[in-house]
Amino acid sequence: LFENQFLTKEAIAEHHILGQIFDTYWLVSFSDKLFMIDQHAAHEKVIYERLMKRLKEKQSMTQTLSPPMIISLSKSEQETAYRFEQELLEIGFVFEPFGGNEFSISGIPADLYGMQEAELFYEVLDGLMNEHPSKVNDAILSKIASMSCKSAVKGNQRLSDEEAKYLIEELLRLDNPYNCPHGRPTIIAFTKYEIERKFKRIIS
Amino acid sequence: LFENQFLTKEAIAEHHILGQIFDTYWLVSFSDKLFMIDQHAAHEKVIYERLMKRLKEKQSMTQTLSPPMIISLSKSEQETAYRFEQELLEIGFVFEPFGGNEFSISGIPADLYGMQEAELFYEVLDGLMNEHPSKVNDAILSKIASMSCKSAVKGNQRLSDEEAKYLIEELLRLDNPYNCPHGRPTIIAFTKYEIERKFKRIIS
Repeated sequence: LFENQFLTKEAIAEHHILGQIFDTYWLVSFSDKLFMIDQHAAHEKVIYERLMKRLKEKQSMTQTLSPPMIISLSKSEQETAYRFEQELLEIGFVFEPFGGNEFSISGIPADLYGMQEAELFYEVLDGLMNEHPSKVNDAILSKIASMSCKSAVKGNQRLSDEEAKYLIEELLRLDNPYNCPHGRPTIIAFTKYEIERKFKRIIS
Repeated sequence: LFENQFLTKEAIAEHHILGQIFDTYWLVSFSDKLFMIDQHAAHEKVIYERLMKRLKEKQSMTQTLSPPMIISLSKSEQETAYRFEQELLEIGFVFEPFGGNEFSISGIPADLYGMQEAELFYEVLDGLMNEHPSKVNDAILSKIASMSCKSAVKGNQRLSDEEAKYLIEELLRLDNPYNCPHGRPTIIAFTKYEIERKFKRIIS
């Protein structure tokens, strides 16, 4: 269904955004296909891939918190934080002890807009806490997926045309834009051929 | 799939035309459905229903030819023309003898833009010529269908947004807008539910 050459830079320039239906799905025509794009799944995918790319290239991108946020961690949370300090740093968390059980968080992963910063840190620690060291990469991946999901725009949430355009272009540039990190589709494609068959312009 | 209440006047006012794909199909959202409308089949249907309505209400609507067109008819064509004069008048043909084998055509059915007037008349006579009188109504219907088809806008033929809007509204006001006179679909509908299932937002 999806040929790879579709997603060349030239190709992306030629797509045309028709509009949105049900406040959630964007209709995009491209060459001889019609795409329906789920804005939530698309955003989730785009955030996930941004985070994954940085993780792979070891260039964490941090959103600086100024002033830093002071939070209390339990003993087991502290232990987890130290144990996975490197991994947490790689996804963008910057923290240091602040005396007693308190920690100062001065950076969180970029792109995770709209989440409670403290909640985010607790949740990631919680996800890592009981992991066997050999599975820590999977745990990080799964956390990134769930963080992406939480911070992604929802269905029914208003996107401007400009935001939609930006999101769709970023999605279509990905190597595999077709599934969100949870495996749900981001794009449903209808070919011209399929549509012509439905209209009985082609009989077969 | 299609509830009748959809097509009330209020409902029609609420549809939203998103745009066109493949130079042929118009995407229209309405409430919790997405419609794809084939512009050729839609136009064919609309022309057909206009002609049928007039035929039923015995109000023929004629497009006056000025000056009238003079054409020659063979003996058997003349005989057919006289035999079905009433029926021909009802669909909008106005003609009278003009001496010898010549006839003066001063009116042809309205809405059949872009057809050669002479060709149209010959073709209708030809369709009626060998019909058994009991089947003449069917023959007229089938001729109206084929005339509608010929004079309808084609796929890939440029419609302005204004023309498309007018066509779509007229289509949606019909009692049964969903099939062209040849039985091909004019509209393919996708419900929100179907789309959500495709995106696995609904699992069943």
